[in-house]
This record gives sequence, structure tokens and C-alpha cells, in this order.
Amino acid sequence: MGEFELIERYFRSRPERSDTGVGTGGVVLGIGDDAAVLALPPGCELVAAIDTLVEGRHFPAGCAPQSIGHRALAVNLSDLAAMGADPKWFLLALTLPAADPEFLDSFSQGLFELARQEGVMLVGGDTTAGPMAMSVQVLGAVEAGRAITRSGAVPGDLLYVSGTPGDAAAGLNHLLKSQPVEGADADVLDPDLQFLLHRFLYPEPRVELGRVLRGLATACIDVSDGLAADAGRLAAASRCGAQIEAERLPLSAAIRARHDAAAATQFALGGGDDYELCFTVPPSKRAELESRLANVKCRVTCIGRVVEKLSLKITRDGKPLDCDTRGYDHFSGHG
Amino acid sequence: MGEFELIERYFRSRPERSDTGVGTGGVVLGIGDDAAVLALPPGCELVAAIDTLVEGRHFPAGCAPQSIGHRALAVNLSDLAAMGADPKWFLLALTLPAADPEFLDSFSQGLFELARQEGVMLVGGDTTAGPMAMSVQVLGAVEAGRAITRSGAVPGDLLYVSGTPGDAAAGLNHLLKSQPVEGADADVLDPDLQFLLHRFLYPEPRVELGRVLRGLATACIDVSDGLAADAGRLAAASRCGAQIEAERLPLSAAIRARHDAAAATQFALGGGDDYELCFTVPPSKRAELESRLANVKCRVTCIGRVVEKLSLKITRDGKPLDCDTRGYDHFSGHG
Repeated sequence: MGEFELIERYFRSRPERSDTGVGTGGVVLGIGDDAAVLALPPGCELVAAIDTLVEGRHFPAGCAPQSIGHRALAVNLSDLAAMGADPKWFLLALTLPAADPEFLDSFSQGLFELARQEGVMLVGGDTTAGPMAMSVQVLGAVEAGRAITRSGAVPGDLLYVSGTPGDAAAGLNHLLKSQPVEGADADVLDPDLQFLLHRFLYPEPRVELGRVLRGLATACIDVSDGLAADAGRLAAASRCGAQIEAERLPLSAAIRARHDAAAATQFALGGGDDYELCFTVPPSKRAELESRLANVKCRVTCIGRVVEKLSLKITRDGKPLDCDTRGYDHFSGHG
Repeated sequence: MGEFELIERYFRSRPERSDTGVGTGGVVLGIGDDAAVLALPPGCELVAAIDTLVEGRHFPAGCAPQSIGHRALAVNLSDLAAMGADPKWFLLALTLPAADPEFLDSFSQGLFELARQEGVMLVGGDTTAGPMAMSVQVLGAVEAGRAITRSGAVPGDLLYVSGTPGDAAAGLNHLLKSQPVEGADADVLDPDLQFLLHRFLYPEPRVELGRVLRGLATACIDVSDGLAADAGRLAAASRCGAQIEAERLPLSAAIRARHDAAAATQFALGGGDDYELCFTVPPSKRAELESRLANVKCRVTCIGRVVEKLSLKITRDGKPLDCDTRGYDHFSGHG
């Protein structure tokens, strides 16, 4: 199978693309020309992010291709969710050692299932041979001036996180310790472990929550490198500090069933790959937040507050908590 | 050096970025948040393309990092040029085995020199550790409805190419035959060879020409996989055929000095990496094209015409010419 047949078979002829030409979902010109031509809704600004997944770095070698496809798009949608933007289109740069139909079937299934769910369309890309890696570039729209940044938090704001952070890191931890990755392992039948693995393999970008937070959250960041590190980044971008009360962390039943409190807390604060949103809301808007959340599936939890002092403080029951909060760094490798 | 220091040192604190905040070059929010927020000029559509360079595929291992930085952006600008779009912003997903300051200095110099020249701003990206590769995603604008596609050519249109195709392929051919890549080789002092190497290492995206062709060219494609293959794609997208008269190919003095006519023609028709524009213009607009070109640096040459019969025909002095016109395919490998 050549490059052009590959694009045609797996990426071009998907029902999710614009089949009716000009206008569908703002796609004036989709896959198949030198570039895509897109019409942004009137009064909107463009929101753009790019993220790469590299085999052996962002997912273990041998990981289910369906999960790789899902995550390649999910991590980018998560960036747009953190801006409160509506994702609209994406481009895919896919590098593979070979054009393996089995891989491509499953990869594209994971990719397009999420794309359909979130209403985003593949409008362009590039396929090349090489060590397995993929960059997705996602484009969205937000009403001019309404994007949520990292930098608007002020001392006194309440600090929230969505979902149950730490699950994905606990799931990945298991994946890395158990070889082979799939099947074989009796543990896989354990529903708690299944839940944690699923949280790593199929993260749900919080796009709906991001939309709800527009005009309400003062700052927002997506949690990809660890809750503590990312909360620290939000605070630093806002020229503030933050205090997290570890006893308020919303730990899932599954992580508590499989890990002791100290390990679960470490996963929640220091582990990555959650793709939850961490955001700040003024205390005066707490009631409005709760009322708006009535229609959103995912839970959010207040875990602390924004403070003046420029540092990240983590406590448990009022006492300082020792915890690795550096987050993941691709070149120094800690995390 | 960690990931965040790397971004800060080489990519964030460049003068080319928006230093004054909102509004500069349409950048509402640049590097440093979850995503970039960008304001498209009123009445414009967004034009988006993504392209990946992989070491050992798109450039030889050991290639000058400055050239890699230049080419990573140039190949994407070339896609926008082919649409007649004004490039505005780009995002960079950079994967490197290690954060090597020497590489990064030179890579970012090549990247930002071209960015400054073409007036495009880096607004986001992602750095990760892994086998060397980079995806650039470029965003541009074009007045609504004015993008040039591949599909508007009609039989009778004249077929043009810019510059002198084949040079880059001849330069790459030399690079691949001579090891080590740099220095050592006495040939490097030969000005013709220097010219050919430069054409491969530092292709000039034809952005200005693309702008001039708006409202004039009926179809346009950038020549990345070989002139014959890409002219064939333009014709196929337009549901036409094309005829190229090989004796009209604008071969550079350098390629003619270093190769016989047959080899030079093969490089021009079958080699890749030119990043010239191949486009079609109705005969009635020939005079207008020539008048508009008075202000454009690069030459263009009529090399044939669009025909009704759905095939690509290459002739020399009226006789069929045998030539490998398949273009480069990353997975089947021919080209």
C-alpha cells in the first residue's frame, strides 16, 4: 500500500469529512489539495494547538492502536477545552514504520470515533515513513475576547479540578510494569484496574466543561503533566501562588482500591496524562458554577485556592505534604 | 536543559514573536498558554497545512541544522503559496533525541530567518524527546472565495512552472553520494554544485508568486514530489490531462553544467524537493500574467498545456519521452 492509497483508504473517505463540499462545518476545502480552506464563524477568534505523541514516550510500544488514535486527538482537544474553545477541525501528521493495515484500521477507528463524538473534522495531514509518532494540530473557534487563559487568576479565587486525577498515571504505571501490555495478565479482569487502564488509554477531553467555564473561570489549564505542576503553572502565569489541600483531592474508588492513600495522592498530584481541567473561579461565582454544572456530565471539586505568595503549597490536614510536584519534562526526564 | 528552558531559550524569547500582546500580527495570545488565540483579518478564510520532516527521509542524517529549520518551515509555506494565501502564523512540533544547544541554535536560526523574511510568527508548539522529526503547521489567510485550488484547470490552459526545477534533486543526489555530508569534499568549492546544494538545503517558498496568481491562475500545486507527478495531480484534480514539452523545461545553468541533458531532464521531471509552483493560466490571460510578474523576483516558464485526455503526456520535440514520473511515495519508496 502506497502513501496515497493509505490516505484515501483510511483518512479521506471517512463519513466524518465534508462530503457535500463548501460550507459543511465551515470546511470550504478539505483533504486533497495543498492546504485546507476553512471559514471561521463570524465574530470568532481562531484557537490553535499542536501536540505530538511518540511511541515509547507518550504510549508504550505495543499499545492498542485504537487508544493511540484516540489519545492523539484527545490531548489536543484537551488544550482547546482549557481555552473554552469549540474545536472544529484537525490536521494529522502521521509517521509510521510501515503502512500496516491492521494498525491503521484500529488507529483510525479510535481517532474518528472521538472526532465524531466531539464534532471535529479531519481537514488535512501528511503521512510519512519513519519511527512511529503523530502530531495532531487542532483548530477551534471562540467568540472574540472570550478565550480562557492561564493568567487571569487572582488571590482568593477557588481552585478546582475536574474528574478524578491520578487514575491515568496509576493505569500507565500498571501498563509499564506488566509485560506483555495486553491480555495475558489475570489482573486485567479486575474492574478497578480496567477502569484505571481505560482512564489512561481513552482520556475524555473536557470540551463541554470548557464551554461552560467561559465567562466564569478566571483561569484554566489542562492537566497533562501532573496536577501540582500544572496548577503551579496556572498560578505562575497569573503571578500568584496556589495552595492545594490534599485531603480534598477527588480520588476515584478504583485508585483507592488498588493503592494506599499516599500512593494514590502521589499519582493524583504528580502523575500526568489526566487531561482534566484545573481552573479558578471567584468565590462570588461559586453558586453560578454549580448551577451551570447541572448539565455537564463530569464532576468538579474545589481542591484549594489562589494565594498571593508566589509558590505552590500542598497541605494535608493543615500540615505541609511532601510530594514530587515537578511534572513531566521530556528532556530532563523526571516526572 | 529541560523542555521548558529549551522552549524559553530558543523559541519563546525570539523577537519575531508578538512582544506587545494583543493585536500584533493578529496574535491575541501566543506561546505559553494551552493554545494560541489568533484573529483572522475580516473577510478572510483560514488556510491550514501540516508537513513533517523525518531525519533520514526528508533530509540526510548530519544535514546542517540551519537547513533543517529552514526547510521545516519552507515546505509548509510552499503549500500556502500554492493556495495563493498569505501565511501568518505557524506552530512547531519538534522531536529531538536530546536538547543539544548547538543543534538548537542553528536550527532555530534557520527557522526564524525564513519566518522573519516571510512575516510569519511562531505562536505555539510542542517539544518532545524521540527520534529526530519535526512537524510544522502553518496558518494563513485568503480573501473569502479567492484561494487557488488544484481543480480549476480546463483544457487549453497553459501550464507553467516557476524557477528551475530539478536543481534540488540534483543537489540531494550529490549529498547522498558524498559522505561525510559537509566539508571534506573538494567538489564543494564548485559554484555550480554549491548552487544545486543550496537549492536543496534552502528552498525559497514562492509566496509572493502565489499572491500574484490569485484571480489569474485557474489551478496551482506546489512541486514537492516531482514536477511530472505533481502536474499530473493538478490535471487529475481538474479532471483533465496535461502535456509537458520537455524541451521547454527551464533547466538551470548549474544543472546543465553538472549533468547531461537526459539526467537534468529526469531530475527536473522526476526529482522532488523543488518547492516551485506549477500552475495553469488561460491563454487569454497570458499578457496579464506577464505584466503582473514584472514585480516578482522568480521567473516562470510555460512548459505545456492542459488537455482533455485524462493522462500526462511528456514529449521532447514532439516525440514521447520515457521518464520516471511516479513521484516520491513514502511507503512504496519509489521516486
